[in-house]
Amino acid sequence: MTVIDECPMMHAKATTVEAPDRCLLSRLLDSRKATERLIEPLEPEDLCLQGMAEASPPKWHLAHTTWFFETLVLKPHLPAYSGADPCWSFLFNSYYDSIGSRHPRPERGLLTRPAIRDVITWRHHVDRSLHTLLQRPAHGNCKLQPLVELGIQHEQQHQELLLMDLLDGFGRQPTEPVYCNSWDDTADPCSGSEANWLNMEGGLVAIGISGEEDARHRDGHQGDGFHFDNESPWHRTWLEPFQLADQLVSNAEYRNFIADGGYERPELWMSEGWVMRGQRGWQAPRYWRGDGPASAWAWEFSLAGRQPLDPHSPVRHLSWFEADAYARWADARLPTEAEWEIAARLQGQRLAQLHGVLWQWTASPYRPYPGFKAAPGAMGEYNGKFMSGQFVLRGSSFLTPAGHGRDTYRNFFQPGSRWLAAGIRLAR
Amino acid sequence: MTVIDECPMMHAKATTVEAPDRCLLSRLLDSRKATERLIEPLEPEDLCLQGMAEASPPKWHLAHTTWFFETLVLKPHLPAYSGADPCWSFLFNSYYDSIGSRHPRPERGLLTRPAIRDVITWRHHVDRSLHTLLQRPAHGNCKLQPLVELGIQHEQQHQELLLMDLLDGFGRQPTEPVYCNSWDDTADPCSGSEANWLNMEGGLVAIGISGEEDARHRDGHQGDGFHFDNESPWHRTWLEPFQLADQLVSNAEYRNFIADGGYERPELWMSEGWVMRGQRGWQAPRYWRGDGPASAWAWEFSLAGRQPLDPHSPVRHLSWFEADAYARWADARLPTEAEWEIAARLQGQRLAQLHGVLWQWTASPYRPYPGFKAAPGAMGEYNGKFMSGQFVLRGSSFLTPAGHGRDTYRNFFQPGSRWLAAGIRLAR
Amino acid sequence: MTVIDECPMMHAKATTVEAPDRCLLSRLLDSRKATERLIEPLEPEDLCLQGMAEASPPKWHLAHTTWFFETLVLKPHLPAYSGADPCWSFLFNSYYDSIGSRHPRPERGLLTRPAIRDVITWRHHVDRSLHTLLQRPAHGNCKLQPLVELGIQHEQQHQELLLMDLLDGFGRQPTEPVYCNSWDDTADPCSGSEANWLNMEGGLVAIGISGEEDARHRDGHQGDGFHFDNESPWHRTWLEPFQLADQLVSNAEYRNFIADGGYERPELWMSEGWVMRGQRGWQAPRYWRGDGPASAWAWEFSLAGRQPLDPHSPVRHLSWFEADAYARWADARLPTEAEWEIAARLQGQRLAQLHGVLWQWTASPYRPYPGFKAAPGAMGEYNGKFMSGQFVLRGSSFLTPAGHGRDTYRNFFQPGSRWLAAGIRLAR
Amino acid sequence: MTVIDECPMMHAKATTVEAPDRCLLSRLLDSRKATERLIEPLEPEDLCLQGMAEASPPKWHLAHTTWFFETLVLKPHLPAYSGADPCWSFLFNSYYDSIGSRHPRPERGLLTRPAIRDVITWRHHVDRSLHTLLQRPAHGNCKLQPLVELGIQHEQQHQELLLMDLLDGFGRQPTEPVYCNSWDDTADPCSGSEANWLNMEGGLVAIGISGEEDARHRDGHQGDGFHFDNESPWHRTWLEPFQLADQLVSNAEYRNFIADGGYERPELWMSEGWVMRGQRGWQAPRYWRGDGPASAWAWEFSLAGRQPLDPHSPVRHLSWFEADAYARWADARLPTEAEWEIAARLQGQRLAQLHGVLWQWTASPYRPYPGFKAAPGAMGEYNGKFMSGQFVLRGSSFLTPAGHGRDTYRNFFQPGSRWLAAGIRLAR
Repeated sequence: MTVIDECPMMHAKATTVEAPDRCLLSRLLDSRKATERLIEPLEPEDLCLQGMAEASPPKWHLAHTTWFFETLVLKPHLPAYSGADPCWSFLFNSYYDSIGSRHPRPERGLLTRPAIRDVITWRHHVDRSLHTLLQRPAHGNCKLQPLVELGIQHEQQHQELLLMDLLDGFGRQPTEPVYCNSWDDTADPCSGSEANWLNMEGGLVAIGISGEEDARHRDGHQGDGFHFDNESPWHRTWLEPFQLADQLVSNAEYRNFIADGGYERPELWMSEGWVMRGQRGWQAPRYWRGDGPASAWAWEFSLAGRQPLDPHSPVRHLSWFEADAYARWADARLPTEAEWEIAARLQGQRLAQLHGVLWQWTASPYRPYPGFKAAPGAMGEYNGKFMSGQFVLRGSSFLTPAGHGRDTYRNFFQPGSRWLAAGIRLAR
Repeated sequence: MTVIDECPMMHAKATTVEAPDRCLLSRLLDSRKATERLIEPLEPEDLCLQGMAEASPPKWHLAHTTWFFETLVLKPHLPAYSGADPCWSFLFNSYYDSIGSRHPRPERGLLTRPAIRDVITWRHHVDRSLHTLLQRPAHGNCKLQPLVELGIQHEQQHQELLLMDLLDGFGRQPTEPVYCNSWDDTADPCSGSEANWLNMEGGLVAIGISGEEDARHRDGHQGDGFHFDNESPWHRTWLEPFQLADQLVSNAEYRNFIADGGYERPELWMSEGWVMRGQRGWQAPRYWRGDGPASAWAWEFSLAGRQPLDPHSPVRHLSWFEADAYARWADARLPTEAEWEIAARLQGQRLAQLHGVLWQWTASPYRPYPGFKAAPGAMGEYNGKFMSGQFVLRGSSFLTPAGHGRDTYRNFFQPGSRWLAAGIRLAR
Repeated sequence: MTVIDECPMMHAKATTVEAPDRCLLSRLLDSRKATERLIEPLEPEDLCLQGMAEASPPKWHLAHTTWFFETLVLKPHLPAYSGADPCWSFLFNSYYDSIGSRHPRPERGLLTRPAIRDVITWRHHVDRSLHTLLQRPAHGNCKLQPLVELGIQHEQQHQELLLMDLLDGFGRQPTEPVYCNSWDDTADPCSGSEANWLNMEGGLVAIGISGEEDARHRDGHQGDGFHFDNESPWHRTWLEPFQLADQLVSNAEYRNFIADGGYERPELWMSEGWVMRGQRGWQAPRYWRGDGPASAWAWEFSLAGRQPLDPHSPVRHLSWFEADAYARWADARLPTEAEWEIAARLQGQRLAQLHGVLWQWTASPYRPYPGFKAAPGAMGEYNGKFMSGQFVLRGSSFLTPAGHGRDTYRNFFQPGSRWLAAGIRLAR
Repeated sequence: MTVIDECPMMHAKATTVEAPDRCLLSRLLDSRKATERLIEPLEPEDLCLQGMAEASPPKWHLAHTTWFFETLVLKPHLPAYSGADPCWSFLFNSYYDSIGSRHPRPERGLLTRPAIRDVITWRHHVDRSLHTLLQRPAHGNCKLQPLVELGIQHEQQHQELLLMDLLDGFGRQPTEPVYCNSWDDTADPCSGSEANWLNMEGGLVAIGISGEEDARHRDGHQGDGFHFDNESPWHRTWLEPFQLADQLVSNAEYRNFIADGGYERPELWMSEGWVMRGQRGWQAPRYWRGDGPASAWAWEFSLAGRQPLDPHSPVRHLSWFEADAYARWADARLPTEAEWEIAARLQGQRLAQLHGVLWQWTASPYRPYPGFKAAPGAMGEYNGKFMSGQFVLRGSSFLTPAGHGRDTYRNFFQPGSRWLAAGIRLAR
């Protein structure tokens, strides 16, 4: 592997900075290019690496995001567009039932073909076609703008997924590969002292973003830029007074939880998590490493390879069950998503590590906001059909492309997931 | 099997009617006896029948409820008490980690020993000891009263579970056994016409029941009788205006959903439910039966054996995923648990089938109320550790012992569960 | 359980002694009765006990053997015969594809109905009908005789299976039930000193039994009584000189193997067995018991409950893989089935424990003898379709009904099976 | 992919022709080079392709064969040798328990690192070291010669495995990749008419090859070149007269079996195979393809991609269970391995397609020859520990490197395996 000094992700972050007035096409092409830069440090064999059924290989991400534009933007809106081999539509559909059947998810790693060369060629063909489409006289493009914007956001989500999934796949290899030597994800450490509790008075508050259909509620809430459907509608909710920690839980603090038997005390855990802990042999966050079975956890595996475990870095890569158990041990709890959003809006300047560090598990199951209605067709499948069995995370992580996160963003994962870059912020 | 005219469950309902002023001991002994009456119609082989890992055999229920009193009431409070074989504590602990290890749940059906004779003897020994304990001079009993009350409620819950589990086990047998010929669970049918929508204005409401610690909030809420810890604390929540159907969805209405392709249209389903539907081959509610693979659903299996499917009976034995998909198909949704509780409190007399018919799936994941804290020790495991991955059901069912349900009751099951007596009430 | 002095199995052995000149009908009815006596010491709940997918509940054995006579003897040959509920044919067919579909094997334990009462009534109805059939004028019965004889042998096989399966199901219960207090299976112990090696000169030998079709080969081989199709044809095979141990391996000898790391040394094991050993956690024969995780093996579970492990008893209830590994450790090997049969025929009087003690694993995969052809129809499924993936055992066990075994008998099980009463005789 | 005209495998066959007098070192280096040529037509992503747990990725084969020489030849015999990263020994050990623990087989496809560049560098380092070792003064090399010879044979086995495994991995991709356009494996077709039955008289014959220890038996048997341990000892066995088909079963003949309901008639199958057929949905040989679910089988997937199914080619890629069922349907049977070997030795010139076409399933379970003893240490694990649960195949296939096969060769696979290049020769 060529060790490169400038991490592609850092570059991606820089180039995709959100600028509301930037040309849509230019932002689109920048984000497409940023995705391709992510695979520059990889060996060719890495391109098909799928560490587990929930993850996807890098090449698949490159192909799927291209499929997204081809299927949802170009084919319906650019009549002359000539698409790829129809079989690819089967291969690179992720989960859109309304579009057709698809290759089984756990076998994405078997797709050594089409080769990366052909996928890149396809990407560029699609990019050129998008260029053609979006430079046509503007009248039709008003309708296209939200769709293309969604495509950009989707592309950015897969930039983060690509790296998450890669870390998972690298983490399963005894050789402990390095993605990028100069990767530095410790830029925003915890303070080294205990978190302060920020007092929030609660009451009748409103969260979320209005969709177009409820524009009459626009006063007093966010809503100028892009948002996903699941962030709307803007709606009222009641909060009792609460306190929120002004920083995330650190590795040092989490080590105390382990030392105090946190992984051996069922009274701290949800029953479902306790069983999972046993079956999967959890003893520490996912990428902590020791020097032997009985040794202390002295290392952490990361995209920069094995690194000393930094006590001041926020603890990461743990499941909702671990976050919930830690909170109970600390005589606290996880915040609800409404608490998180209100605090971020009102006290954003006093709360450290809100964005760009780690996704933050909340106490809230992922469910529709009151009045939510999924859009018809494939777009309605984007977020709406996952509203059972998952928990909401708020904020954004060091893997999230710059400009992608916002206070109303609702990320969601199953509570046993550990491969996303998630951490803990306490409430009480 | 001796076909008996009077169903034991009917008798159980009658004898356990809640009367606030009845003597605790007498209510206790009545409920203990009611459990035993439930096995009267069974063949001896039925006593160890465990149809699936989630269900338990009848004998196990009889033993476990006895273990509960022995372990949590008698051993700590009656010094002279001589318990059963210590091995039985391992066999009949359900899920209390704080009490010790236990026999694996999926293998409860293998426990042919102790024989029913010995379990009944044990039950009577425990009942006599409870009699001794509770007739002692009263000073110590104030403390015991809540514990014994919990034991009665626990006993009643297992009366319902025993019958649910039995129906599951009978339903797996090609011989389609009859539990009770005179069983009649069609006493409270739907009206035969469409449900009416009851208007509720919402606003800032309060639900739940105060625990002792928040007695200062007592005005305006329920709270005189028993409640489980998960029903407290009493707390405020905001509701937008909503409408609630004044009756449950009927078999005839659900048949329309099936006829309209309800089980073949992914856009109606949560993704998780859609996958489960395919893997488990769901095509109709769990106990609907046809005369052949391609035939219409003309029958329903029940505790009275195979019966003609009554179009006016409320549809039952379906999962949360099916209830949720049905609601989407009907251009409606499931109510939240707060909506259900408020409507039941304010409009209870105008809402049919609230209690004693079917548990009603809500849109609410089962999570702690704001401020909830699990009790220390085994009691804290009763409800508190299951607050992930499940949905709340409200009301009570035709299998629920009389007096056991109430408007604030929070039943909970995993969303794929179909063996409980659950149905659908729509909201919008 | 009523502790009974005379074990039903002992009785069964006594009553079923083979007498070539005994009336077929009387032998048939005796063997039918012997099966029923086996369940006398059981609790009713035991009747549906199925410890694992490979085993069947006692009641199922009683029903299946009855199904066998009804389906293969009565229905085709007694025109007036009125059979049981057609559904029972589905429930109690074991593995006969040519007869129709059947209830899934792992769910036999769920069949609490028909109740034992109804199964016994059915048995007696079938017995009476067999009585009627076999007392008709004899001309048609010549053809029936082999079929009825097969039915008797089949009944006897299930007598052994019933007890094997029961031991398995009892062995999974922490209460360690006793089938029969007076059960004594130590009647034929090892000598206490090392086995002697009996010299056999080998050469061109012949084994097996002629079927009717090869009666011309009758000189010099067995063949007067009943035999299964898989014991024929009589055929020649070449044996190099070999030695056979004159007794089985004892518990004391096997304990030395364990003490010498037998379960931790992969070089002693077939690869397939080594993996299975790890996955299933094998550390000793199946029913050996210790007083704690680290203790010595001081006990053995048996049909008489937990008993002290007798060092002089032949070691039993181990897999082919364990037998094969032990043999390698002992610098010996397992005999082929031809070696066993020739030695038994020529030196039967000098070889201890040939019959009635333990089945003896051989080195021979279970395959057809040269020239073997399965019969057409259901009878051809009896043995012929299992001739892959299994190993042959020779001899017979303390569970085998008297008169059922013979030197040419080919029993067969998968090499990982441990619940049959099998032991080890060494060769070299 | 660069479509290349000359297939690497063809080249490999040519360069590795056995010449008894060729220099060992030169044969070694040729065979090492031949392996590397096999990956020339591949895309980089193909290098880690592992279609199923039983198969290995191409890069893994390249690394494992190198590990073999490093571990078993260089480290023990070349004191100055400096080996690869010790971690690689864990990664590339296949199944040698005596050497240490190893990476789990089903996860070989996750090993994207070391990259192919590093594996090739390692190969060349090992090749140079072998060159050094084998050019030392000869005295020590006598001992080394058998070890190096085993290494060459091992290398050749993995050449075949690499292509088998690749075909499996390619066959799972909807894009149906082509390994080599000019691949031609139809060079040795069936005659187009029915096979002739060759009469063999049987009697007391001898098969196998003497090891050094039984050199006294050398007259009348093969034994000059290399052989694996499982081919010895030379030993006598008795054969009844038999007939052997002079060619393999063709695609056209096998199509008749399918058309006659071969896959729907349980009476033709071993019970174990019948169940497997149902679970895995077998309806035809593994790589047969149709144009739709109900269409005829018109195509076959191969290393040359999808090709028209040639009726005259011998049917291939089917399991032992299918071969056995076909034979039963054809009123014949599979030959035993002794029959095959004797016929090949005595009538080799009259039997078509003995070598270089397809491996041929025999009726013989893979078991040790009488007197076989596995060598001590790692070498004893090569063949000896797999002698349960598998069947012997004789001959060699179009994927077998030239010079690798011989009449006494005992290949072995589990009876459900379909990804090896195996076909059917009938006997009766």
